[in-house]
Amino acid sequence: MEQRVSLITLGVADVRRARTFYQHMGWIGQETEGTVFIQAGGLAVVLWGRDKLALDCGVNDHKAAGFSGIVLAHNVRSEAEVDQVIAAAEGAGARVTRSAAKTFYGGYAGYFSDLDGHVWEIAYNPGFPLAEDGSITIPDFNGA
Amino acid sequence: MEQRVSLITLGVADVRRARTFYQHMGWIGQETEGTVFIQAGGLAVVLWGRDKLALDCGVNDHKAAGFSGIVLAHNVRSEAEVDQVIAAAEGAGARVTRSAAKTFYGGYAGYFSDLDGHVWEIAYNPGFPLAEDGSITIPDFNGA
Repeated sequence: MEQRVSLITLGVADVRRARTFYQHMGWIGQETEGTVFIQAGGLAVVLWGRDKLALDCGVNDHKAAGFSGIVLAHNVRSEAEVDQVIAAAEGAGARVTRSAAKTFYGGYAGYFSDLDGHVWEIAYNPGFPLAEDGSITIPDFNGA
Repeated sequence: MEQRVSLITLGVADVRRARTFYQHMGWIGQETEGTVFIQAGGLAVVLWGRDKLALDCGVNDHKAAGFSGIVLAHNVRSEAEVDQVIAAAEGAGARVTRSAAKTFYGGYAGYFSDLDGHVWEIAYNPGFPLAEDGSITIPDFNGA
């Protein structure tokens, strides 16, 4: 198994509502057969009905509220950009679950939960180089 | 917000156990301060204690069993490779939630749930070009 992810599919209650939220955040996708595909670097973020997704993957969905167990992070290039993205998300209806603040690793980060409860961290992390194309490279923690 | 994802953090019950599972799948990461970072294309997949992750992002964790609402997909280059990856996952302790089968879009895919219930789809999709470096490009659905 090569070390890569091809798609991240977010199960949502209402595909149109979710698409509108991500459009407010500046993410433009294509819709086909009730599914929205958003190119996000070398992978795709997909918005699809949560019921259909659960059925497709063969897992029972108890639809419990609370934490899903997964967090997506979007790293940015400055502390100011963290504040801007979180403010935009809040303006588009997201819930800020943790206000942006300095982090133990010398960065600055905050979290929001989207309209379906999917949690995003918006982070400025000077220790994780962010390339021009937005890709990140994990530093060598054991190195010099 | 640029259209990209920087990290996918999977909350896990036991970081060592989760790391061993992904090592069995061929994914090698680095551990620092009880957190494993695995470079996966232009982003990182991170394994971290679910309790710490929930606390960090400010979301209550009811730890409900069942579907998390998110599915990660790993696209491969052939139907045979789908079978190989799913067999390897099962051998490493994953639960196959849907056996690999032909899909409506002319591909071939199956699903497994990892040791912490995170769901992966392993798919061969001839309609989504997979580059040499493993990145995918969403086709133009409205195009010719």
